[in-house]
Amino acid sequence: MPKLRDLELRLQKTEEQLRLFQKVSRLMVRELSFQEALKGIVSLVVEFTRCDSCLVYVLDNDELVLCAANTPHPTAIGKVRLRLTEGLTGWVARERRLLAISREAYKDPRFKSFGELPEDTFEAFLSAPLIARNRVVGVINLQHRLPHQHTGDEMEGITTVGEQVGCVLVLARSAPTALAAAGAVELPLPTGPVPMKQ
Amino acid sequence: MPKLRDLELRLQKTEEQLRLFQKVSRLMVRELSFQEALKGIVSLVVEFTRCDSCLVYVLDNDELVLCAANTPHPTAIGKVRLRLTEGLTGWVARERRLLAISREAYKDPRFKSFGELPEDTFEAFLSAPLIARNRVVGVINLQHRLPHQHTGDEMEGITTVGEQVGCVLVLARSAPTALAAAGAVELPLPTGPVPMKQ
Repeated sequence: MPKLRDLELRLQKTEEQLRLFQKVSRLMVRELSFQEALKGIVSLVVEFTRCDSCLVYVLDNDELVLCAANTPHPTAIGKVRLRLTEGLTGWVARERRLLAISREAYKDPRFKSFGELPEDTFEAFLSAPLIARNRVVGVINLQHRLPHQHTGDEMEGITTVGEQVGCVLVLARSAPTALAAAGAVELPLPTGPVPMKQ
Repeated sequence: MPKLRDLELRLQKTEEQLRLFQKVSRLMVRELSFQEALKGIVSLVVEFTRCDSCLVYVLDNDELVLCAANTPHPTAIGKVRLRLTEGLTGWVARERRLLAISREAYKDPRFKSFGELPEDTFEAFLSAPLIARNRVVGVINLQHRLPHQHTGDEMEGITTVGEQVGCVLVLARSAPTALAAAGAVELPLPTGPVPMKQ
């Protein structure tokens, strides 16, 4: 029954994507520091796409600063800075578009090598802008060491994550000012199970 | 083939929920005013749940203020105010829990009638807190005129929307201060199609 198998696979993929958004959403409501929020997002994206590298750049005064990675980058985090005219990442921020390259990303004319990043030799590159209130606030890059044909689910997933995450990053950087302005009150966390009256 | 039909239905429901989150997410990245953001969210939730009423209350100095509705409420918007100790809505904000009542919501001991709201006579009530950075910033209520057994998808959907939306509402109220603090730059919208290099 090929049709049944197709449906099962499609359902599985759709549920995976739904779970990714729900997890990002759960993460968003916690009161995380900027770094914790970035770390959480990187983990969820790596789990979803099984990519070899996930890097997040955040816009800081017209420059994109490498702020988070799934593997240790002790000398690069906070140090690698890109102008919006530089590299594939700069292009994504400038053009505010998804970019998917399935092989030989390093041969793309827009590519810029940093030397210090092992990711510079990776084959496949998927990148999406992080957006909040119609402004680019960063870029998220997923890379596969080997050539990888990105699926529609992956491209759709990372686009939506970029949209979900931009807002949280802005709040994490500006809080508690923004929350105070919005008149929000902090409430104790519920301790019991969620009651449902049906 | 009952299994095939089950799978098709399940896939359809999952895709509907996924589309809801994606649409909320697309809405979130636009630079909307506070009122426009609320209106957009109400429309999407009504489309998803086909409820008869959708009301959004926003926390303002320890009171919940009715700020948006799917039907015209000229005398109630901005005027109906609830303390956190009042009504089902106050309970949801105070306890930070989902509340689902399938029939006779008006008989619940926590219920508070406003007289002026036609929704006071509706049977079914589904309500979730709007949350940002671990704080309740509002409540979203869906009501059905007739008894309605809420599905898991509806409960899950409205919970996630409440999580997605809280952050946007805070930003919409505090922008442009928060964005300026985050160093975001406004970029022109792309005009052409999204290029993909595969």
